[in-house]
Amino acid sequence: MDRLKQQLSFLLEIDKQKEIIRQTYLADGSRKETDAEHAWHLAVMCMVLSEYANEPIDVAKTMMMVLTHDLVEIDAGDTYAYDAKGNETKKERELSAASRIYGLLPDDQKAYLRSLWDEFEAMETPEARFANTLDKIQPVLLTDHAEGKSWREHEVREEQIMNRNERTHEGSEVLWEYIRDVIKKNVDAGFIRGGGFGSLASPL
Amino acid sequence: MDRLKQQLSFLLEIDKQKEIIRQTYLADGSRKETDAEHAWHLAVMCMVLSEYANEPIDVAKTMMMVLTHDLVEIDAGDTYAYDAKGNETKKERELSAASRIYGLLPDDQKAYLRSLWDEFEAMETPEARFANTLDKIQPVLLTDHAEGKSWREHEVREEQIMNRNERTHEGSEVLWEYIRDVIKKNVDAGFIRGGGFGSLASPL
Repeated sequence: MDRLKQQLSFLLEIDKQKEIIRQTYLADGSRKETDAEHAWHLAVMCMVLSEYANEPIDVAKTMMMVLTHDLVEIDAGDTYAYDAKGNETKKERELSAASRIYGLLPDDQKAYLRSLWDEFEAMETPEARFANTLDKIQPVLLTDHAEGKSWREHEVREEQIMNRNERTHEGSEVLWEYIRDVIKKNVDAGFIRGGGFGSLASPL
Repeated sequence: MDRLKQQLSFLLEIDKQKEIIRQTYLADGSRKETDAEHAWHLAVMCMVLSEYANEPIDVAKTMMMVLTHDLVEIDAGDTYAYDAKGNETKKERELSAASRIYGLLPDDQKAYLRSLWDEFEAMETPEARFANTLDKIQPVLLTDHAEGKSWREHEVREEQIMNRNERTHEGSEVLWEYIRDVIKKNVDAGFIRGGGFGSLASPL
Protein backbone atom coordinates (compact mmCIF):
# COMPACT_ATOMS: atom_id res chain seq x y z
CA MET A 1 0.00 0.00 0.00
CA ASP A 2 3.03 2.29 0.26
CA ARG A 3 3.09 2.48 -3.51
CA LEU A 4 -0.58 3.49 -3.70
CA LYS A 5 -0.04 6.08 -0.97
CA GLN A 6 2.83 7.65 -2.89
CA GLN A 7 0.71 7.75 -6.04
CA LEU A 8 -2.23 9.34 -4.22
CA SER A 9 0.00 11.88 -2.55
CA PHE A 10 1.26 12.91 -6.02
CA LEU A 11 -2.31 13.02 -7.36
CA LEU A 12 -3.42 15.27 -4.50
CA GLU A 13 -0.36 17.50 -4.80
CA ILE A 14 -1.01 18.16 -8.48
CA ASP A 15 -4.49 19.41 -7.59
CA LYS A 16 -2.62 22.71 -7.19
CA GLN A 17 -2.33 22.81 -10.99
CA LYS A 18 -5.92 24.10 -10.80
CA GLU A 19 -4.71 27.18 -8.94
CA ILE A 20 -2.03 28.31 -11.36
CA ILE A 21 -3.56 31.06 -13.46
CA ARG A 22 -2.32 31.60 -17.01
CA GLN A 23 -2.36 34.89 -18.89
CA THR A 24 -4.72 33.51 -21.53
CA TYR A 25 -8.43 34.26 -21.18
CA LEU A 26 -11.15 31.72 -21.88
CA ALA A 27 -12.55 31.97 -25.42
CA ASP A 28 -15.39 34.18 -24.13
CA GLY A 29 -12.95 36.48 -22.33
CA SER A 30 -14.71 36.03 -18.96
CA ARG A 31 -11.65 35.05 -16.93
CA LYS A 32 -8.14 33.63 -17.30
CA GLU A 33 -7.76 29.86 -17.61
CA THR A 34 -5.92 27.61 -15.15
CA ASP A 35 -3.01 25.31 -15.95
CA ALA A 36 -5.24 22.25 -15.45
CA GLU A 37 -7.81 23.59 -17.91
CA HIS A 38 -5.09 24.41 -20.43
CA ALA A 39 -3.61 20.91 -20.14
CA TRP A 40 -7.06 19.34 -20.56
CA HIS A 41 -7.67 21.43 -23.67
CA LEU A 42 -4.31 20.42 -25.20
CA ALA A 43 -5.06 16.73 -24.59
CA VAL A 44 -8.41 16.92 -26.39
CA MET A 45 -6.78 18.94 -29.20
CA CYS A 46 -4.19 16.19 -29.46
CA MET A 47 -6.96 13.57 -29.92
CA VAL A 48 -8.76 15.63 -32.57
CA LEU A 49 -5.83 17.19 -34.48
CA SER A 50 -3.15 14.47 -34.46
CA GLU A 51 -3.72 13.83 -38.18
CA TYR A 52 -1.97 17.15 -38.89
CA ALA A 53 1.32 16.21 -37.23
CA ASN A 54 4.20 16.47 -39.70
CA GLU A 55 5.45 13.03 -38.68
CA PRO A 56 3.52 10.01 -37.33
CA ILE A 57 3.11 10.37 -33.56
CA ASP A 58 2.18 8.13 -30.65
CA VAL A 59 -1.04 9.93 -29.70
CA ALA A 60 -1.28 8.41 -26.20
CA LYS A 61 2.26 9.43 -25.32
CA THR A 62 1.68 12.94 -26.67
CA MET A 63 -1.50 13.23 -24.60
CA MET A 64 0.38 12.17 -21.46
CA MET A 65 3.05 14.73 -22.28
CA VAL A 66 0.62 17.64 -22.62
CA LEU A 67 -1.38 16.57 -19.55
CA THR A 68 1.72 16.87 -17.37
CA HIS A 69 3.95 19.41 -19.17
CA ASP A 70 3.09 22.28 -16.79
CA LEU A 71 3.24 20.43 -13.44
CA VAL A 72 6.49 22.21 -12.62
CA GLU A 73 4.54 25.48 -12.50
CA ILE A 74 3.02 24.35 -9.18
CA ASP A 75 6.30 25.50 -7.64
CA ALA A 76 7.78 27.65 -10.40
CA GLY A 77 4.61 29.58 -11.33
CA ASP A 78 3.43 30.46 -14.82
CA THR A 79 5.91 32.69 -16.60
CA TYR A 80 4.14 34.82 -19.21
CA ALA A 81 5.54 34.14 -22.66
CA TYR A 82 6.44 37.79 -23.14
CA ASP A 83 7.99 38.40 -19.68
CA ALA A 84 11.70 38.65 -20.53
CA LYS A 85 12.91 38.94 -16.94
CA GLY A 86 10.84 36.01 -15.63
CA ASN A 87 12.09 33.85 -18.47
CA GLU A 88 15.71 34.35 -17.39
CA THR A 89 15.24 32.33 -14.19
CA LYS A 90 12.48 30.03 -15.50
CA LYS A 91 14.60 26.97 -16.27
CA GLU A 92 16.28 26.87 -12.88
CA ARG A 93 12.99 27.26 -11.00
CA GLU A 94 11.37 24.55 -13.11
CA LEU A 95 14.19 22.02 -12.65
CA SER A 96 13.96 22.23 -8.90
CA ALA A 97 10.16 21.93 -9.09
CA ALA A 98 10.45 18.82 -11.25
CA SER A 99 12.67 17.10 -8.66
CA ARG A 100 10.22 17.74 -5.87
CA ILE A 101 6.94 17.04 -7.66
CA TYR A 102 7.89 13.95 -9.68
CA GLY A 103 9.81 12.80 -6.59
CA LEU A 104 6.51 12.12 -4.83
CA LEU A 105 5.87 9.14 -7.15
CA PRO A 106 7.27 5.61 -6.94
CA ASP A 107 10.63 5.41 -8.74
CA ASP A 108 9.39 3.85 -12.00
CA GLN A 109 6.63 6.41 -12.49
CA LYS A 110 8.85 9.25 -11.33
CA ALA A 111 11.37 8.30 -14.03
CA TYR A 112 8.68 7.96 -16.71
CA LEU A 113 6.88 11.23 -16.04
CA ARG A 114 10.15 13.09 -15.64
CA SER A 115 11.38 11.69 -18.96
CA LEU A 116 8.16 12.86 -20.64
CA TRP A 117 8.78 16.39 -19.36
CA ASP A 118 12.44 16.34 -20.42
CA GLU A 119 11.34 15.11 -23.86
CA PHE A 120 8.75 17.89 -24.14
CA GLU A 121 11.32 20.52 -23.24
CA ALA A 122 13.98 19.15 -25.61
CA MET A 123 11.61 19.17 -28.65
CA GLU A 124 13.64 16.50 -30.39
CA THR A 125 10.98 13.84 -31.02
CA PRO A 126 7.86 13.98 -33.23
CA GLU A 127 5.67 13.77 -30.09
CA ALA A 128 7.49 16.63 -28.35
CA ARG A 129 7.37 18.77 -31.48
CA PHE A 130 3.61 18.24 -31.90
CA ALA A 131 2.96 18.79 -28.18
CA ASN A 132 4.86 22.08 -28.34
CA THR A 133 2.88 23.11 -31.43
CA LEU A 134 -0.40 22.49 -29.56
CA ASP A 135 0.92 24.41 -26.55
CA LYS A 136 1.67 27.41 -28.78
CA ILE A 137 -1.48 27.45 -30.93
CA GLN A 138 -4.04 26.95 -28.15
CA PRO A 139 -3.57 30.42 -26.59
CA VAL A 140 -3.67 32.01 -30.08
CA LEU A 141 -7.02 30.33 -30.83
CA LEU A 142 -8.49 31.40 -27.48
CA THR A 143 -7.13 34.95 -27.64
CA ASP A 144 -8.34 35.36 -31.21
CA HIS A 145 -11.83 34.37 -30.05
CA ALA A 146 -11.57 36.77 -27.09
CA GLU A 147 -10.83 39.66 -29.49
CA GLY A 148 -7.16 39.82 -28.55
CA LYS A 149 -7.84 40.52 -24.86
CA SER A 150 -4.51 39.38 -23.35
CA TRP A 151 -2.51 40.68 -26.34
CA ARG A 152 -4.10 44.10 -25.92
CA GLU A 153 -3.55 44.12 -22.14
CA HIS A 154 0.13 43.28 -22.55
CA GLU A 155 0.53 45.37 -25.74
CA VAL A 156 2.07 42.35 -27.43
CA ARG A 157 3.90 42.98 -30.70
CA GLU A 158 3.72 40.84 -33.82
CA GLU A 159 7.46 40.31 -33.64
CA GLN A 160 7.15 38.78 -30.16
CA ILE A 161 4.44 36.36 -31.26
CA MET A 162 6.35 35.38 -34.37
CA ASN A 163 9.55 34.79 -32.36
CA ARG A 164 7.65 32.70 -29.86
CA ASN A 165 6.19 30.67 -32.71
CA GLU A 166 9.47 30.28 -34.55
CA ARG A 167 9.34 26.49 -34.20
CA THR A 168 5.56 25.94 -34.23
CA HIS A 169 5.72 24.73 -37.85
CA GLU A 170 8.04 21.88 -36.80
CA GLY A 171 5.13 20.01 -35.22
CA SER A 172 2.58 20.74 -37.92
CA GLU A 173 2.93 22.82 -41.08
CA VAL A 174 -0.86 22.70 -41.61
CA LEU A 175 -1.71 24.05 -38.16
CA TRP A 176 1.03 26.67 -38.30
CA GLU A 177 -0.25 27.92 -41.67
CA TYR A 178 -3.72 28.33 -40.17
CA ILE A 179 -2.41 30.08 -37.05
CA ARG A 180 -0.18 32.41 -39.05
CA ASP A 181 -3.30 33.67 -40.81
CA VAL A 182 -5.06 34.11 -37.45
CA ILE A 183 -2.11 36.18 -36.21
CA LYS A 184 -2.16 38.34 -39.39
CA LYS A 185 -5.88 38.92 -38.99
CA ASN A 186 -5.31 40.17 -35.44
CA VAL A 187 -2.49 42.44 -36.54
CA ASP A 188 -4.83 43.90 -39.18
CA ALA A 189 -7.51 44.36 -36.52
CA GLY A 190 -5.04 46.20 -34.29
CA PHE A 191 -5.24 43.59 -31.48
CA ILE A 192 -1.56 42.74 -31.99
CA ARG A 193 0.86 45.61 -32.54
CA GLY A 194 2.10 45.39 -36.13
CA GLY A 195 5.39 46.43 -37.62
CA GLY A 196 7.35 43.24 -37.95
CA PHE A 197 7.78 40.61 -40.63
CA GLY A 198 6.16 42.51 -43.49
CA SER A 199 2.70 42.64 -42.02
CA LEU A 200 -0.01 44.46 -43.97
CA ALA A 201 -0.47 46.70 -40.93
CA SER A 202 3.17 47.71 -40.96
CA PRO A 203 3.75 51.42 -41.55
CA LEU A 204 6.76 50.60 -43.76
CA MET B 1 -9.81 23.09 -44.84
CA ASP B 2 -13.50 22.48 -44.07
CA ARG B 3 -12.48 19.51 -41.97
CA LEU B 4 -10.01 21.56 -39.95
CA LYS B 5 -12.61 24.30 -39.49
CA GLN B 6 -15.13 21.80 -38.12
CA GLN B 7 -12.51 20.43 -35.73
CA LEU B 8 -11.53 23.89 -34.51
CA SER B 9 -15.15 24.91 -34.05
CA PHE B 10 -15.60 21.84 -31.81
CA LEU B 11 -12.40 22.64 -29.92
CA LEU B 12 -13.53 26.23 -29.29
CA GLU B 13 -17.05 25.13 -28.30
CA ILE B 14 -15.73 22.75 -25.65
CA ASP B 15 -13.85 25.65 -24.05
CA LYS B 16 -17.18 26.08 -22.21
CA GLN B 17 -16.29 22.93 -20.23
CA LYS B 18 -14.14 25.35 -18.19
CA GLU B 19 -17.27 27.20 -17.10
CA ILE B 20 -19.24 24.26 -15.78
CA ILE B 21 -18.78 24.28 -12.01
CA ARG B 22 -18.96 20.99 -10.11
CA GLN B 23 -20.04 20.58 -6.50
CA THR B 24 -16.62 19.26 -5.50
CA TYR B 25 -14.15 21.68 -3.92
CA LEU B 26 -10.45 21.69 -4.74
CA ALA B 27 -8.38 19.68 -2.26
CA ASP B 28 -7.63 22.88 -0.30
CA GLY B 29 -11.32 23.81 -0.16
CA SER B 30 -10.72 27.24 -1.74
CA ARG B 31 -13.30 26.97 -4.54
CA LYS B 32 -15.24 24.40 -6.56
CA GLU B 33 -13.52 22.74 -9.49
CA THR B 34 -14.59 23.03 -13.14
CA ASP B 35 -15.49 20.15 -15.44
CA ALA B 36 -12.31 20.71 -17.45
CA GLU B 37 -10.17 20.51 -14.30
CA HIS B 38 -12.00 17.37 -13.17
CA ALA B 39 -11.47 15.70 -16.56
CA TRP B 40 -7.78 16.64 -16.52
CA HIS B 41 -7.40 15.15 -13.05
CA LEU B 42 -9.08 11.89 -14.09
CA ALA B 43 -6.78 11.57 -17.11
CA VAL B 44 -3.64 11.92 -14.98
CA MET B 45 -5.12 9.52 -12.42
CA CYS B 46 -5.68 7.08 -15.26
CA MET B 47 -1.98 7.28 -16.24
CA VAL B 48 -0.80 6.78 -12.66
CA LEU B 49 -3.35 4.26 -11.32
CA SER B 50 -4.10 2.01 -14.31
CA GLU B 51 -2.18 -0.85 -12.70
CA TYR B 52 -5.06 -1.24 -10.24
CA ALA B 53 -7.72 -1.92 -12.88
CA ASN B 54 -9.40 -5.29 -12.25
CA GLU B 55 -8.94 -6.21 -15.91
CA PRO B 56 -6.26 -5.13 -18.41
CA ILE B 57 -7.28 -1.81 -19.98
CA ASP B 58 -6.28 0.23 -23.00
CA VAL B 59 -4.93 3.24 -21.08
CA ALA B 60 -5.03 5.64 -24.04
CA LYS B 61 -8.67 4.86 -24.78
CA THR B 62 -9.59 5.23 -21.12
CA MET B 63 -7.82 8.59 -20.99
CA MET B 64 -9.76 9.78 -24.05
CA MET B 65 -12.96 8.59 -22.40
CA VAL B 66 -12.40 10.50 -19.17
CA LEU B 67 -11.20 13.63 -21.01
CA THR B 68 -14.51 13.87 -22.88
CA HIS B 69 -17.04 12.11 -20.61
CA ASP B 70 -18.56 15.36 -19.30
CA LEU B 71 -18.76 17.36 -22.56
CA VAL B 72 -22.54 16.92 -22.59
CA GLU B 73 -22.69 19.06 -19.45
CA ILE B 74 -21.92 22.12 -21.62
CA ASP B 75 -25.62 22.04 -22.52
CA ALA B 76 -27.03 19.78 -19.82
CA GLY B 77 -25.22 21.29 -16.82
CA ASP B 78 -23.64 19.41 -13.94
CA THR B 79 -26.21 17.41 -12.03
CA TYR B 80 -25.08 16.95 -8.42
CA ALA B 81 -24.79 13.28 -7.57
CA TYR B 82 -27.24 13.61 -4.69
CA ASP B 83 -29.85 15.76 -6.49
CA ALA B 84 -32.68 13.25 -7.01
CA LYS B 85 -34.90 15.58 -9.02
CA GLY B 86 -32.16 16.73 -11.40
CA ASN B 87 -31.16 13.14 -12.02
CA GLU B 88 -34.67 12.29 -13.30
CA THR B 89 -34.23 14.43 -16.42
CA LYS B 90 -30.46 14.07 -16.72
CA LYS B 91 -30.32 11.38 -19.40
CA GLU B 92 -32.67 13.18 -21.78
CA ARG B 93 -30.82 16.49 -21.43
CA GLU B 94 -27.48 14.78 -21.98
CA LEU B 95 -28.57 12.87 -25.09
CA SER B 96 -29.67 16.03 -26.81
CA ALA B 97 -26.41 17.74 -25.78
CA ALA B 98 -24.38 14.87 -27.21
CA SER B 99 -26.06 15.23 -30.61
CA ARG B 100 -25.30 18.91 -30.82
CA ILE B 101 -21.76 18.95 -29.42
CA TYR B 102 -20.31 15.86 -31.10
CA GLY B 103 -22.20 16.95 -34.23
CA LEU B 104 -19.75 19.83 -34.68
CA LEU B 105 -17.01 17.35 -35.62
CA PRO B 106 -16.37 15.66 -38.98
CA ASP B 107 -18.41 12.42 -39.23
CA ASP B 108 -15.61 9.97 -38.39
CA GLN B 109 -14.56 11.83 -35.24
CA LYS B 110 -18.16 12.53 -34.28
CA ALA B 111 -18.85 8.78 -34.40
CA TYR B 112 -15.70 7.92 -32.45
CA LEU B 113 -16.14 10.43 -29.64
CA ARG B 114 -19.84 9.68 -29.38
CA SER B 115 -19.08 5.96 -29.13
CA LEU B 116 -16.58 6.65 -26.34
CA TRP B 117 -19.29 8.50 -24.39
CA ASP B 118 -21.87 5.76 -24.99
CA GLU B 119 -19.30 3.19 -23.84
CA PHE B 120 -18.56 5.19 -20.69
CA GLU B 121 -22.25 5.44 -19.86
CA ALA B 122 -22.95 1.74 -20.52
CA MET B 123 -20.13 0.56 -18.19
CA GLU B 124 -19.83 -2.73 -20.01
CA THR B 125 -16.14 -2.72 -20.99
CA PRO B 126 -13.03 -2.81 -18.75
CA GLU B 127 -12.15 0.72 -19.91
CA ALA B 128 -15.61 2.09 -19.10
CA ARG B 129 -15.64 0.37 -15.72
CA PHE B 130 -12.25 1.78 -14.77
CA ALA B 131 -13.16 5.27 -16.08
CA ASN B 132 -16.31 5.23 -13.96
CA THR B 133 -14.30 4.12 -10.92
CA LEU B 134 -11.94 7.09 -11.38
CA ASP B 135 -14.91 9.43 -11.84
CA LYS B 136 -16.36 8.24 -8.52
CA ILE B 137 -13.20 8.16 -6.40
CA GLN B 138 -11.74 11.52 -7.47
CA PRO B 139 -14.38 13.63 -5.66
CA VAL B 140 -14.05 11.44 -2.55
CA LEU B 141 -10.29 12.01 -2.45
CA LEU B 142 -10.69 15.78 -2.90
CA THR B 143 -13.55 16.10 -0.42
CA ASP B 144 -11.70 14.00 2.16
CA HIS B 145 -8.75 16.40 1.83
CA ALA B 146 -11.11 19.40 2.12
CA GLU B 147 -12.45 18.05 5.44
CA GLY B 148 -15.75 16.96 3.94
CA LYS B 149 -16.70 20.47 2.78
CA SER B 150 -19.23 19.59 0.05
CA TRP B 151 -20.60 16.61 2.03
CA ARG B 152 -21.22 18.87 5.01
CA GLU B 153 -22.82 21.58 2.88
CA HIS B 154 -25.21 19.10 1.30
CA GLU B 155 -25.63 17.03 4.49
CA VAL B 156 -24.79 13.92 2.51
CA ARG B 157 -25.57 10.59 4.17
CA GLU B 158 -23.37 7.51 4.15
CA GLU B 159 -26.14 5.57 2.47
CA GLN B 160 -26.18 8.00 -0.47
CA ILE B 161 -22.43 7.73 -0.96
CA MET B 162 -22.50 3.96 -0.70
CA ASN B 163 -25.36 3.73 -3.21
CA ARG B 164 -23.55 6.01 -5.61
CA ASN B 165 -20.46 3.84 -5.26
CA GLU B 166 -22.30 0.55 -5.63
CA ARG B 167 -20.35 -0.31 -8.78
CA THR B 168 -17.04 1.44 -8.02
CA HIS B 169 -15.43 -1.92 -7.15
CA GLU B 170 -16.13 -3.19 -10.68
CA GLY B 171 -13.34 -1.03 -12.09
CA SER B 172 -10.85 -1.64 -9.30
CA GLU B 173 -11.22 -3.65 -6.11
CA VAL B 174 -7.97 -2.18 -4.77
CA LEU B 175 -9.03 1.44 -5.23
CA TRP B 176 -12.54 0.77 -3.91
CA GLU B 177 -11.11 -0.85 -0.78
CA TYR B 178 -9.02 2.24 -0.17
CA ILE B 179 -11.93 4.63 -0.82
CA ARG B 180 -14.29 2.63 1.39
CA ASP B 181 -11.91 3.26 4.29
CA VAL B 182 -11.76 6.97 3.43
CA ILE B 183 -15.57 7.11 3.51
CA LYS B 184 -15.65 5.30 6.87
CA LYS B 185 -13.09 7.72 8.27
CA ASN B 186 -15.30 10.65 7.24
CA VAL B 187 -18.39 9.06 8.76
CA ASP B 188 -16.45 8.64 12.02
CA ALA B 189 -15.37 12.28 11.83
CA GLY B 190 -18.98 13.36 11.35
CA PHE B 191 -18.33 14.86 7.88
CA ILE B 192 -20.67 12.28 6.33
CA ARG B 193 -23.92 11.54 8.16
CA GLY B 194 -23.69 7.99 9.44
CA GLY B 195 -26.40 5.45 10.02
CA GLY B 196 -26.24 3.14 7.06
CA PHE B 197 -24.42 -0.04 6.21
CA GLY B 198 -23.20 -0.91 9.69
CA SER B 199 -20.95 2.07 10.12
CA LEU B 200 -19.08 2.47 13.40
CA ALA B 201 -20.80 5.80 13.77
CA SER B 202 -24.24 4.26 13.43
CA PRO B 203 -26.49 4.70 16.45
CA LEU B 204 -27.84 1.18 15.97
